[in-house]
Formats: sequence, C-alpha cells, structure tokens
Amino acid sequence: MPHPSHRPLGVALIGYAFMGRAHSQAWRTVGAAFDVPEIARRVIVGRDEHALAEAARRLDWEEHTTDWRAAIAREDVDIVDICTPGALHAEIAIAALEAGKHVLCEKPLANSSEEAERMVAAAQAAARRGQVAALGHTYRRVAALRLARRFIAEGRLGRLRQIRAAYLQDWLVDPEAPMSWRLRKETAGSGALGDIGSHAIDQVCFLTGARVASVRGRLATMVPERPGPDGPEPVTVDDAAWATLELEDGTIASIEASRMATGAKNRMSLEVYGTRGALRFDLENLNELWFLDATAPAEEQGFTRVLVTEPEHPYGGAWWPQGHVLGWEHSFTHQARDLLRAITGGEPFSPDFADGLALQRVLEAVIASDAADGATIAL
Amino acid sequence: MPHPSHRPLGVALIGYAFMGRAHSQAWRTVGAAFDVPEIARRVIVGRDEHALAEAARRLDWEEHTTDWRAAIAREDVDIVDICTPGALHAEIAIAALEAGKHVLCEKPLANSSEEAERMVAAAQAAARRGQVAALGHTYRRVAALRLARRFIAEGRLGRLRQIRAAYLQDWLVDPEAPMSWRLRKETAGSGALGDIGSHAIDQVCFLTGARVASVRGRLATMVPERPGPDGPEPVTVDDAAWATLELEDGTIASIEASRMATGAKNRMSLEVYGTRGALRFDLENLNELWFLDATAPAEEQGFTRVLVTEPEHPYGGAWWPQGHVLGWEHSFTHQARDLLRAITGGEPFSPDFADGLALQRVLEAVIASDAADGATIAL
Amino acid sequence: MPHPSHRPLGVALIGYAFMGRAHSQAWRTVGAAFDVPEIARRVIVGRDEHALAEAARRLDWEEHTTDWRAAIAREDVDIVDICTPGALHAEIAIAALEAGKHVLCEKPLANSSEEAERMVAAAQAAARRGQVAALGHTYRRVAALRLARRFIAEGRLGRLRQIRAAYLQDWLVDPEAPMSWRLRKETAGSGALGDIGSHAIDQVCFLTGARVASVRGRLATMVPERPGPDGPEPVTVDDAAWATLELEDGTIASIEASRMATGAKNRMSLEVYGTRGALRFDLENLNELWFLDATAPAEEQGFTRVLVTEPEHPYGGAWWPQGHVLGWEHSFTHQARDLLRAITGGEPFSPDFADGLALQRVLEAVIASDAADGATIAL
Amino acid sequence: MPHPSHRPLGVALIGYAFMGRAHSQAWRTVGAAFDVPEIARRVIVGRDEHALAEAARRLDWEEHTTDWRAAIAREDVDIVDICTPGALHAEIAIAALEAGKHVLCEKPLANSSEEAERMVAAAQAAARRGQVAALGHTYRRVAALRLARRFIAEGRLGRLRQIRAAYLQDWLVDPEAPMSWRLRKETAGSGALGDIGSHAIDQVCFLTGARVASVRGRLATMVPERPGPDGPEPVTVDDAAWATLELEDGTIASIEASRMATGAKNRMSLEVYGTRGALRFDLENLNELWFLDATAPAEEQGFTRVLVTEPEHPYGGAWWPQGHVLGWEHSFTHQARDLLRAITGGEPFSPDFADGLALQRVLEAVIASDAADGATIAL
Repeated sequence: MPHPSHRPLGVALIGYAFMGRAHSQAWRTVGAAFDVPEIARRVIVGRDEHALAEAARRLDWEEHTTDWRAAIAREDVDIVDICTPGALHAEIAIAALEAGKHVLCEKPLANSSEEAERMVAAAQAAARRGQVAALGHTYRRVAALRLARRFIAEGRLGRLRQIRAAYLQDWLVDPEAPMSWRLRKETAGSGALGDIGSHAIDQVCFLTGARVASVRGRLATMVPERPGPDGPEPVTVDDAAWATLELEDGTIASIEASRMATGAKNRMSLEVYGTRGALRFDLENLNELWFLDATAPAEEQGFTRVLVTEPEHPYGGAWWPQGHVLGWEHSFTHQARDLLRAITGGEPFSPDFADGLALQRVLEAVIASDAADGATIAL
Repeated sequence: MPHPSHRPLGVALIGYAFMGRAHSQAWRTVGAAFDVPEIARRVIVGRDEHALAEAARRLDWEEHTTDWRAAIAREDVDIVDICTPGALHAEIAIAALEAGKHVLCEKPLANSSEEAERMVAAAQAAARRGQVAALGHTYRRVAALRLARRFIAEGRLGRLRQIRAAYLQDWLVDPEAPMSWRLRKETAGSGALGDIGSHAIDQVCFLTGARVASVRGRLATMVPERPGPDGPEPVTVDDAAWATLELEDGTIASIEASRMATGAKNRMSLEVYGTRGALRFDLENLNELWFLDATAPAEEQGFTRVLVTEPEHPYGGAWWPQGHVLGWEHSFTHQARDLLRAITGGEPFSPDFADGLALQRVLEAVIASDAADGATIAL
Repeated sequence: MPHPSHRPLGVALIGYAFMGRAHSQAWRTVGAAFDVPEIARRVIVGRDEHALAEAARRLDWEEHTTDWRAAIAREDVDIVDICTPGALHAEIAIAALEAGKHVLCEKPLANSSEEAERMVAAAQAAARRGQVAALGHTYRRVAALRLARRFIAEGRLGRLRQIRAAYLQDWLVDPEAPMSWRLRKETAGSGALGDIGSHAIDQVCFLTGARVASVRGRLATMVPERPGPDGPEPVTVDDAAWATLELEDGTIASIEASRMATGAKNRMSLEVYGTRGALRFDLENLNELWFLDATAPAEEQGFTRVLVTEPEHPYGGAWWPQGHVLGWEHSFTHQARDLLRAITGGEPFSPDFADGLALQRVLEAVIASDAADGATIAL
Repeated sequence: MPHPSHRPLGVALIGYAFMGRAHSQAWRTVGAAFDVPEIARRVIVGRDEHALAEAARRLDWEEHTTDWRAAIAREDVDIVDICTPGALHAEIAIAALEAGKHVLCEKPLANSSEEAERMVAAAQAAARRGQVAALGHTYRRVAALRLARRFIAEGRLGRLRQIRAAYLQDWLVDPEAPMSWRLRKETAGSGALGDIGSHAIDQVCFLTGARVASVRGRLATMVPERPGPDGPEPVTVDDAAWATLELEDGTIASIEASRMATGAKNRMSLEVYGTRGALRFDLENLNELWFLDATAPAEEQGFTRVLVTEPEHPYGGAWWPQGHVLGWEHSFTHQARDLLRAITGGEPFSPDFADGLALQRVLEAVIASDAADGATIAL
C-alpha cells in the first residue's frame, strides 16, 4: 500500500487512556523533531462518549467515534494505532490489516499465542500488500538502549555471557490496593510477568538479536485476594515472576518482574556482560547508558556514564542540545518516526507481529515452567 | 486586559531557533497535559523568510511573518512570546506591552540594567491594564526545583546557611571553537556569567525568596581569541565566572559558571544547607531532588533521592504515572501553563520583569566587583 | 572453658594466604578499636616453611609451625582460627574442638553437608564445655549490613516480600584464565555458587532471620575447559549460578552468582523489599546503606543514602569520626571483637556451625535442583 | 643520618588523640602490607598520665612518657611523629630535627608562616645531615588521588583550565555546639579554612604540581558566639571560607570549606577540568576516581568510575584483591610506607616543610584578602 503522496497520512487512534495519551503526544510532536511525512490526526476511538469527546479536544484529534469499525473503514485513515487492553488487540488489528491499513499495536501483542498466531498470519498477508504491522515495545526506542544495541552489534561487548534484566514497580505493595482487570487472568493474561516482565524479556531479545531457546520460570502471587466492590476477590495472576532464559547462543539471561518492589517506581534495570565489555541501564535514569570497555587499560577501566544526548547518538540532534535530557514520552515520538519511515521509506520496523508472537511464547513458557515445578521448557 | 472568552488566546512567537522550538513544543502540548484556556498558535516571526516558513510548518504555526511589529499589532494575538537574542528584548517587549499584549520574554530580560529598567516601567504600566509580563527563567518550573522551594518555604531546612550553585558546560573547551555573537560583549552582554551563571543566581533567588545584598566576583577569559571568518578575533566576554553572594538574611551563596568544564554537558548543580536540612540537585538528572532531613534520627539520616514524579509533587499527575520521567522540555510546558493561569486566573507569574532587573543588577555587580579587584559591591 | 584471666587469650592461625592475612590484620588491630580481652598471636601454621616464616614475620606472629596438630595442642593456645581451603576445615575444626579450643572457621564450613554435620556434632559437644565454634561469614559484620538487619528486625520494612541478592565478580571472564583448585569439584565443592553465592544466601538468612524452606536452582559452566600445566583441563564446577529461595515465611529471594560478570569487581548487591520499607546495598560501596521508609509522606519518599559511620551505628564510635569511612578489612576486626566477646562475655556468636550446615544444605539443594531440571527441592 | 641497619627504626609518637590513634594504626600495620624496614614503636607521649597509659596499652607502644623532650632524646628513637595541636608543632619539630631525628609532622605545619619559616630552616639544616622532615597531608596518599595526579602528570587532561575543590563537613551546624580550642584564633590559627580548606588547597597543589600565584578570599563566621563553661564565648575563626586561586600557569581553582554544610560528613570533593579530560573525586567514596577522556569518541564519552583497587593502581597489590575496598585509615599506612622508604631509600618525601610553608602562606593570603574586602593578594 504505497502512501498516496497527495495528502497527509491519516491516523486513527483506538484508546484514549494512558497509552492513548502517550501515543497522541507522539503523533502531535513527531513532525517538529523529525523529517517525516505529514500526518493528520483523523479520529480517536473509545467507548465512553463523554470522556472520549474531552480526550479528542485535549489531545487534538479532528474527530472521535465510539465505533472502531467505522474508524478503520475511513478512506482518509492510513494508520490504525491500537491502544486498547490486550484482549481486544487481535480483533481490531486483524480487521485493520484486512481493511488495508498500516497497524501499530501496543504491547502485549495479544493475551495468548493462539491470538498472536492469527495476527501474524494477517500481518504476513498484509505485508505482501505493502502494509506495515508494528508492535509497540516502545522501550526499544529509548536512545540509550538503542545505543546499547549498537555497541553489542558492533562487538564492543565481545561474546555475551550473562544478562540480568529486571522490571520492578511498587504499585501493588499495599494489600488493600483494589482488584482490577489487570489482576484477572481472563482479562490480563498474566500479571507482572506479562505487563512489565515482557519489557525486560523484549529487551533481552532486542539487545542481543538472539532467540530464546529455553526457559525456566517461577511465579508468585503474594497477595492472593484483594478488595473488590462486593468484597474480596481472588487475584488470579502473578504479583512477581522470575525466570532464566537460555538464548540460542548459550547466553543466559535472568529475568525478575515485580509490582511488589517497594520504592521502585519504574525501574527496568538491565546489565549485559560480555567477554570484551559490559553495559548497565536503569529506566529511571533513561538518558544514561553505563558502558565498560574491558579492553581498556586496567588502571582507567570502569563503567562510563554516557549521557545519551549527543548528536552522534541514536535519535541525536533531533531534539535539544547535548545535556538537555529527554523524558519517558520521547520514545513514543521515536516510535512514530520509525513507523512513518517504515511506511514511506521501506525501512523495516522492528519489532513486528512475529516478534510479538515469539515473546508471547516465551511468556507462556515461563508460566508452563512454573506449572511444571520449574522444569525447562524448550521453545 | 481580561481575556475575551469567546475565542482562543492567540500567541505570536518571535524567534524560531533553539528557544523558539522549545516554546513551540510547549504551546503545542500544554493543553494536553493541563487544564488551561484554549490557545491558537497564530504566527511565528523571524528574519530568514525561507527558514521561517519551514519552521512554521514543522512547529505547526498558522502563519509566519518577518515583521514582528505586524505580528504584535494583530487583533487575534493576545500573547507575545519573545525568543530573540537578548539585545532585541527591550524594544519588542515594550512595543508588545504598549500594544496591550501579554508578554513572555526569554531570559536574559535585557543586556543592561538600563534597558531592563525601561522594560520594568512598561510592565508596571501594563500591569495596571491587567497585562502579564513574564520572564522565562524556565528552570523555576522544573518539578524538582519547585519541590525544593516548597521544602525551604515550609521551613524543612530551617535557617539557611550556605548555598553552592554552579552551572557548568563544556562547549568552549576547544580553543578552536569559532567566534560567535555570544562571545562579544556588545551582542551578548556577558559570557558564561550571563548565559548560564544567571540561571544559577536566579535559582538562589527563587529557592530562598531572598534578595542579594552584596556581591564579590571574578571573571576569566581562558581563550582570549578565537577564529573568525577573517582570522582571529578577540573574545570580549568571560569563559568562566565565580562569585559569592551575600543574601539579605546573611546566607552566603557561591556561584560558579563555566563553558570550559570538560565533560559537563548541562550541569546546573545546586546545594542548599540549612540548620534543619539540606538539598542537592543536578540538572542532568532533573527528575531527582536529594533531600536531607537533619531532624531525622542519626542512624537513618542521609540524603534521600526523591524521584519527583508523584501526583503529590509540583505539576504532578498531569503527565504520566510515577517513575515515568520528564525531560528538559517539559519545564517549558509548565511555564506555558503557569502563564495561561496568570492571564486568566489572576495567579501572579514569577519571575516578572522586576525580578529580571534585579538579576541583571547582580550580574553587573559581579562584573563591577571583578573590575574592582574583587571588592564587595552592595546592591 | 572459662578463660584463664591471668594471661592473654592465645590464638593459633592455620593458613597464611588471602584469608590468613585478613585474619592477622584483625587480630592485630582489634584491641586498638574495641574493649576486648588481651590476646597473644601465638603461632601461625602453613605448609611451606619458607613462605610461612616470612608470613609470620610480616604478620607479626610469635611463632610458626608446619604442624597444625602441634599448634592445636599448645597449652597457651585458646583460639584456633582456620583459614585453610574448605576441604581441610572439618578435620582441623573437629580436632581443635576436641582439644578444648574455641574455633573460628572461615566459610565455607565444609565442602559437603556430611562433613558439616560432623562439625556441628563436635561443636555441640564443645558448647557444653563452654567452647565457642564460630563461622566466618564476615560480611555479617559490615556495619551497613548489620544496620540493615536491625531495621528489618525492628519492623521498619514491615512484612518482607521479595529479596534480590547477587554476588558478581569478573575474574573468570577470560577463557584463558588458568585452571585452579577452585575450578575442580573435588577440591572446591562448587564454583561461583559456593564461593560467592554462599555469601549472598547467607545474607538472606542473616538479614531476615528466616530459614530457607525450598529452592529452585540453575548452574552454568560457560567455559568448560581451561588451560592447565599439561594442556586443557575440564572445569567441573559452575561459573555462574541462579536460584530462587522460598523462605519459611513465604518471602522469595532470588540469587545470582557469577565470576563472569565483566567489570564487577566485588559486587555483592542486595535489595530487600517489604510492605513498609526497602533496603539496598552494594559491597563495592560498603559504608552506605540505602533505606526507603514507605511510611514517609509521598512527596519526600525515596531511598536515603545512609553513610554508616555514625556513633549510633553498629560498631560505631570505635573507629574514626563520622564520614571517615571503613574498608573491606574492618569487618574482620569486628568479627574478632564479637568472637572475643562471645568467649569471655557469653554473648552468642552468630553464625555458628549449625548455620553453616544449613547453608551447605541450601547450596546442595541448588545443585540438586539444577540436576533435576529445575525442580523444587524442599529443605 | 643513615639508618643503623642492625636494629629496627624506633618511633616516638607525640599525641594519642584522633591523629595519634590513626598514626598508631599505620605504624602497626605498615609492615604487613608493604616491604619496609622493621620498626619499633618505642614510646608514645602525652600530657594526661592516666589516659596516656591506657592509650599506650591499646595502641601497643612499648613505653609512654609525659616528657616529649625525653622521648626525643632517646638513642633508640629515629623517627619523631608529631600529632599534637598545631600550636606545638614548631617547638617539637625543631627540637627533634636538632636532635638528629627524622620528623613526620601532622598538618597544619604551623599556625603561622613565621613559625613555619623557622621549621623550614631547621628542616633544611637537617636535610644536609640526611634527615627527612615530612608533612602529614595524608590525603595525598589516597590511591585514587595519587592516580589522579598520575593522569594529570601524564597529560591525560591536557592543559588544565579550572578546578573546583571543596571540603564540607557539618559538625558546627548546631549553634549550641560548644566552644572549643578549634574555634579560637590563638589556638587554631583559623577555622574551616585552615582545618579542612587546607586539605582542598593542598590537593590543588598536589594534583597540579603548580604554585599558587594569587588569591582572592572570603570568610564568614555564621555563629558568632557559642556556649562555653562560663557562658557564651566569641568564635574568633571562620565557620566557612571561599577563595579563588590563580595558579602560576593560569589555571583557576575555586575553594570552598565549611563546617556548616548540613549532611556533609567528610566530603572533600574535587573536580579538575582540562582541555583533554576531566576528573572528579569525593572523599566519602574514596576508592573511586571518575575520569573523563575527552579524546574518546563522542558516542561513548563520559565519566568513568574507576574503582582504584587494581594491582596497576597506586599502592595496588599490597592490600586485598581488586574490589576489596580500602578505608580512610589506609592512607596513613601508605604515608608510613613512603616515609620509611624516604628514610632508607632516599626517595624524596612530598609534601615537605617547604610545601607546608607555601600552603600556610596561601591560607594567610586568603585571610588577608578577606580583610582587604576581597582584593587579590599575590604570593
């Protein structure tokens, strides 16, 4: 589907909550920072008419509708951006792809690998028509992490040995924190594992470019029931999860995800150890990458705090002068840029739906391993 | 000049370079994050027609013009936002105020206190007509620094004793870095002192709420000439500056500003010491405030890293969930919010032009002290 | 065996390498820092007569001998301090206890739980005679970690939820690093797991005071053979190890140990998360404990860097004024102090041999779990 | 005075308080870590017979006496180590040098440059007899700072531009902290400036190897009177001091010293900026040196945390394996080592009394500048 160059690329956004707001910000600012084709924020979609109208106004969308099928069907919509809960991803994404639209789907791709497989099939068919099906693992667009991947790909770390990846938050520490759809298996698929552990696992794949070969996992539900509107309800997903992943090249990655880590606000912490170097990163200080060059003379060797805001850095030069740091939201703008370039320039967008399916299978393997008392699950 | 509520507040932006881009981003995003009156980005003004047209397109302004007087004269313009070099501030700001507009003027207010005095007079006259004249010392809108001021105002630090304020950058380390208007006294007023030292001094005033009573200063020009298009040219401003300020309450603040601090990218570092507590801050990690409560039991006392992204924090709740950090640009959005509230709600905006004049006098006192071999200059 | 007060407590030290040097330093300095009974450094024991004589001179021991049985038999020896490789611990410790001596045994207690059980039996018999049998998990004497335990015991963290414990070093990153006794199962018992992972696990037990109920583990040998004097030899222990421990109270601790973590010099990193607070620690900055009080107001909450050098802190006031930091070796002096107080004052010394046996069983359970494809091993 | 090789070098220590304890620890441990001639801790000297006897026992000195002249006169004493308050330094040091002894004198060399000049004269005369007269600015023996000097001397920082040196403590924050001899000009010479600011200034000289050419200074006494035994007494020295030093090569160093910096425990913080690199250091983390190589590629440039515990580092290999950190006291052991090598091997010891005199003159110039309303004082 080559872009009709005589008009802007039209975007439809499905969802206006947290992710919808972040994506809106990206669509609104991408053209100021980057050389990208013109876009038009055609329509935003949601269920609550009143809240939706307010969102459309604040987030600056031309129109709004509660009918996502109508939004997808519009002639002037080229890109469907899906920010709904995961349970709706498959239906909307497949419909949008079948309607000939490019799709950006927030993570998780789906709540089950069965859904994800159908989405991959739809994406493959669409790819043959020139459509892009992109998965929104936005942290791949943090400049420091992109720099990390560059260093690894260039061999600066040598042969990788060991990765430590954790994603720790604290919003469920209070046992009186109320029940929600995120704590039910039917609606959320899994808990900390799928919601935030998936980011950590995706980073392992992104940084190394390697496939996960096998998994051992453990899950825990530390607060087994929480207050609902009509009394206590059982929590049916994990509060915390641990896994070791063996990658196809033998590297072992440990994963830890938790919503019970008191005082950890948004701490995705990554450490990568190779024979020639090492890297560290913490999402709470996302402008910094810590790099160790193990080939440097011993007397001056150590982790270097690289402030990833130079023109030489990924996405560098587009924003502000060096040292004028970026925030969490900027990765969404980077994502919009990369998607637009993929649509118009043919640069492949990564991750795609197949990456999302592979990740979903890793998540399911962790759950299966825990159910099998920790046994190794091959992938 | 009460706002005519039947239409959006129209903004004219004078300047489209670094600061113009940052202000544009703020005007474009403020309505998504905050409850503010509707605005319209009416017109952007610059000198280079071609570059200006491109800027207008990318930064999403309705129109553009090379005639700032025409822009100011427009009926549908309510706010004039001045992002030109400092030498033009006085003329434009006074004209805009006289035309009945609200004004936001980037720092420095002016290049001399004489100019600044005229601007204050114009602002005072305009204030009687209900106009706002705001000064863009944006770092006052960094959430962590606003929290710092709150702690000090609440007495959490007790009686202040000592402040260490530095603003260090490294963009002039290379002696072959070329001559520019920022390195000539006529165009820039002063060097590191006025450009970045002024931020450090403004923070001292902002955080303490106190007036500077006297100053001792020192300036240095480490690289006395730099390459111009026709050969070496003399640098007539300082590369680095040092001062001690005595505040009206006896607190002493040390100031250090430099563009020769190798490896310092944008390091405004602040330390405030009082009888009951202390604070530390570094602009390269602007989401963090380090607070020490000296009344806490000794065994658990120390500097606490507060990640200033909670709903309870200044500007909290408007952006993303806790731990999803902000960047350098967000302070400009906060500034736009506060200006709009000042215009429509009557909340006073600080700093105003009088603050800018006071700051200009401190800068001139530092220069005068250096010229008088370090003698104390009273204010 | 009450101490005969008319003469100093005589010490025999078995071993003069790394640990022997550290223990010597402790015996030599403990009396300067702390109020302890007088001691005499009677005799140091080793196998190489020449190196031993040199060690005796430098480390300031009255005599030296290559016959540990003779050293143990001496009337003027009250304390036998065992710093040999682990394979010799059982024989020497049991003999010393049977000879009526107090014993300090470096970790690991033994290379197998069978040996450890015999040592515990000997210690129990000796305890009835008033002898002390102490295990040298010295990191329990780092002031910051002792403060951590105090906070946990006082309930400052509330109910514990989750612990992250890692011990990372990099001395085996180079695949050409030579074969040694530490890399053979027969002599070393296990690899990174037993050598440094054991410290991490011991800290979990020390900090929480809880027993390990069950274990899941994984081991890896990343470099399967290394150069020996006569060509490549197989490495028969792990280079890295991972485990999750479920404590008797339901807390889950993740453990990671590695000698392949490039750039990690001596990084035992601990994080403890509870319902009311959290703690972080890194052995490379061992004077600091990071404490988060989750009951503090949200706007000032965060991890506090406590510099653990105040008089109010564990072992505080004995050394230097606040802020004059201690080093790695000081924990050995603390250990000597605590042992002397246990001997003369009856304060129980922890950890004892039973703690060492329990720890050995955890290590063996990790190995057994890995051998059983990750299955849970109950303890 | 060549050392009589048939017996150990005898040491007499004058003073048994804070510094006396630190020096004792050094004399007791130096032979274990380093290859140095044998020493004997002959005699410790103090005024209070009872406290002195107790100190002699704990710190392990052969004898004690209240008569420092007698101690100096002993045949078996080769080194006189002076740890008294500064007002006594000149008399004792000159007497010891005239008696043919090597002298180690704690800083400050003296309380006035007049005294210091007489000490230098005595030292010069003694040097002709082969005696060493050493000044105890111990921080020159912190391994990280010695590494810093090595980097600077090797040209790794290029031409130096700017130094920021501060020494901040908080022990006088409380206005009710009692009067003491350190707060009277007659006994202490100066306040924060001489006590801790002197360390910062000495580091500037040590790191750069350059002489101070001129000075501008400011002093403040924030709490002008404090409780004495018979009511309030005037504080006649500074609580805090600021200065800018111009070095002979044009480098400018800013100095800040304070005992009023709440929460700063022992924070000597140093930053050195040159055309090719930069360094940072903080005494509260004294095993770390932060080094920036400005010639590295921009994408990987930044401050590197070097953990200064490798065999390649200054004093490396003598203590423990890499990553097993040292404490504050180890610098005193390094000092003892260097002094013994200077005595027996002829390696010159730095700083010497002439360095102490030069430093005293800088301190007096700071005071003179403040008295002259900040005027530049040439040296």
